[in-house]
Amino acid sequence: MIIDYSEQLIVQEVAPRDGLQIEPTWVETADKIALIDQLSHAGFSRIEAGSFVSPKAIPALRDGEQVFAGIRRRTGVIYVALVPNRKGAERALAAKADELNLVMSASQTHNRANMRMSCEASLAAFGDIVALARDVGGVTLNGTVATAFGCPFEGRIEEDRVMRLIDQYLDLGLDGITLADTTGMANPRQVDRMIMRALHRLTPASLTLHFHNTRGLGLANVLAAYEAGARRFDAALGGLGGCPFAPGASGNICTEDLVNLCDEMGIPTGIDLPLLIELSRTLPALLGHDVPGQVMKAGRNCDVHPVPEYVRGL
Amino acid sequence: MIIDYSEQLIVQEVAPRDGLQIEPTWVETADKIALIDQLSHAGFSRIEAGSFVSPKAIPALRDGEQVFAGIRRRTGVIYVALVPNRKGAERALAAKADELNLVMSASQTHNRANMRMSCEASLAAFGDIVALARDVGGVTLNGTVATAFGCPFEGRIEEDRVMRLIDQYLDLGLDGITLADTTGMANPRQVDRMIMRALHRLTPASLTLHFHNTRGLGLANVLAAYEAGARRFDAALGGLGGCPFAPGASGNICTEDLVNLCDEMGIPTGIDLPLLIELSRTLPALLGHDVPGQVMKAGRNCDVHPVPEYVRGL
Repeated sequence: MIIDYSEQLIVQEVAPRDGLQIEPTWVETADKIALIDQLSHAGFSRIEAGSFVSPKAIPALRDGEQVFAGIRRRTGVIYVALVPNRKGAERALAAKADELNLVMSASQTHNRANMRMSCEASLAAFGDIVALARDVGGVTLNGTVATAFGCPFEGRIEEDRVMRLIDQYLDLGLDGITLADTTGMANPRQVDRMIMRALHRLTPASLTLHFHNTRGLGLANVLAAYEAGARRFDAALGGLGGCPFAPGASGNICTEDLVNLCDEMGIPTGIDLPLLIELSRTLPALLGHDVPGQVMKAGRNCDVHPVPEYVRGL
Repeated sequence: MIIDYSEQLIVQEVAPRDGLQIEPTWVETADKIALIDQLSHAGFSRIEAGSFVSPKAIPALRDGEQVFAGIRRRTGVIYVALVPNRKGAERALAAKADELNLVMSASQTHNRANMRMSCEASLAAFGDIVALARDVGGVTLNGTVATAFGCPFEGRIEEDRVMRLIDQYLDLGLDGITLADTTGMANPRQVDRMIMRALHRLTPASLTLHFHNTRGLGLANVLAAYEAGARRFDAALGGLGGCPFAPGASGNICTEDLVNLCDEMGIPTGIDLPLLIELSRTLPALLGHDVPGQVMKAGRNCDVHPVPEYVRGL
C-alpha cells in the first residue's frame, strides 16, 4: 500500500490539562508552569495548558489563572484553555489563552454525566461563549465532540449524529473541531470512515483527533486517521489522563509513544523525542505513581543495548 | 481506503510457552494443562503448548513431556512445541507435538545471546532436525526468524537478510515461517514492506507474524500486516512474555486485546472473546502479578456501563 508519510503530524500536548485533571496528588503551580515551559521547548506548536472549570469540580486545576500568568510564552506556540461555560470563558479570556476549547458529548447521557446538562443546553451556552470571544477578539475557538466514537453508557454513536454536531459547531462559527474517543471505544475501521466523512466538512488543519489507549488501540487509531487524511492529534506525556466513567481504563494516547512511532515511520512532527522521554521520566516522582507510557520505559525503537559479556566470549 | 476485512485472522496462542517461559513463579503442570485445555475450548486452531529446551536454561517449562501427555487434544487444534536443538526435537517428537517450531535470530549477536551459537550453526542443526522429523513423520515444521524487524544489540536488520533466511528455511523444507519482532522494534510501515516481500516467497497460510507490544505498536503492526496480506499471528493471553534482552519491555501482543480489535473491525477469528477475557482474569492469581492486557481490565469496546444515579435524576 503506497501512502505518503511526508506530511507533518501535529501533536497537541494535553498532559497539563487532560492529564493532570484526574490526578489525586496536588501538583504545585510552579511545577505545572515548569512542565508547560519544558513542553514549549520540546517543539510543540499547541499545548492545552489549563482548564477554567469550577475549582470544586476539578480542584487539581484550580490554579488556571496563575498557570497562564506564569508560563513563558514561546512564539508560535498556541496555549489552549478548556472552558465548560461562559464563566470559564471569561476567566480564560482574562488569562489571555490563545484558544478556547469547548466540550460537549455526542451522547446525551455522557453529556449529562460530564457537564450536567443536555446537549441542547451545551450548544446554547456555546453560542454565548462565541459571541463573548468575538467581542474580546484575538482568540480562536475549538469545539470538542466527546464520545464521538462511542459512549460508555449508550454504546455506539450514530456517525450521522457526529456529522450533524460538526455542522452545528461550524454554524456557530467555531474555528476547529476535535473528535474525541473519550473512553477508548474507537477502532481503526470506524476511524477511517469517520475521518473520510469529517474531511468533507473540515480541512485537515481544522480537525483534531483525540484518542485514548483504553484497549490498546490508540496508536492504531492514530495511524488509521493519518492515513485517512487527518493531521492533528491530542496526546498526553506519559499517557496521563483517563475518564472517570470508564473504570479500569488507561489514559490518553502517550505523546512520546506517538512521536516514537512517527520518527520510526518517517512522519515529521518537529518534536524532540529524547527531551520528551526525559521529561516523561520525571512524571512518576511528580505524581507519585507509574505512568502508562511505554517508550519512557523501553526506550526508542532505535535505541540499542550493550552486548552481554558472555556473548563477546563465545 | 477500501480494504477487505472479511478474511479470517488466525491467532496462534503462545502464552503456555512464550508467556510462561520467563515467569519466575512455578506454574504447576496441572495448571498448565488446564490453561491449554481452556484455550482449546476458546476456539484457537493453534496453541504453542510447550518447549523442549534444557530444564537448566528454562526451568519454568521443564515439564514439557507431562504437559503434552496431559492435555486433552481437541480435533482441529495444532499443538506446537518449541525446539532449540536435535535433543529437543527428539523429546518433542516422542511427546507427539503436532508441529515443531525452530528458532534462529536474523541477528548474529542475538542468536549468540539467545542460542549460544552462530546463525550458520543454527541452520546446520535445523537440517538434522528436519531429517529426523521426516523420518518420524506426522509432524509439520515451522521456522522462526527472531529479531527480523530489529535487534536490540545490532539495531536495524537488512530486509534482504531476512528474505535470504526465508529462502534458506524453505530450502531446508520447512512448512511455515514466522517473522518475529522479538523486542518490539517494528513499525507499521516497515511491516508493510516486509510482508509484501515475504508474500512473494510464502503463502498467507505459511507465514506467521510474531509481534511484541514493547513500545505500544503491537496492534498497529498486526493491522499493517493484515492489510498487507498476512493472516496468521502469534499472541499471548494477558500479553504475557517478553525478552530478557530488552529491559523494561512489556511482552507479546495480548490475545484478548487482538481479538477485541478484530471483533470491532469485523475480522473473523473464531475465538470466544468473553471466555478469553474470563481466562485472562485468572492470570494475576496464577502468576502473582498484574498482566499487561488492557481489555481484561477495561472490558470490550462494546461493553456499556450503568448510568450513574445522579444522571437519572437530572
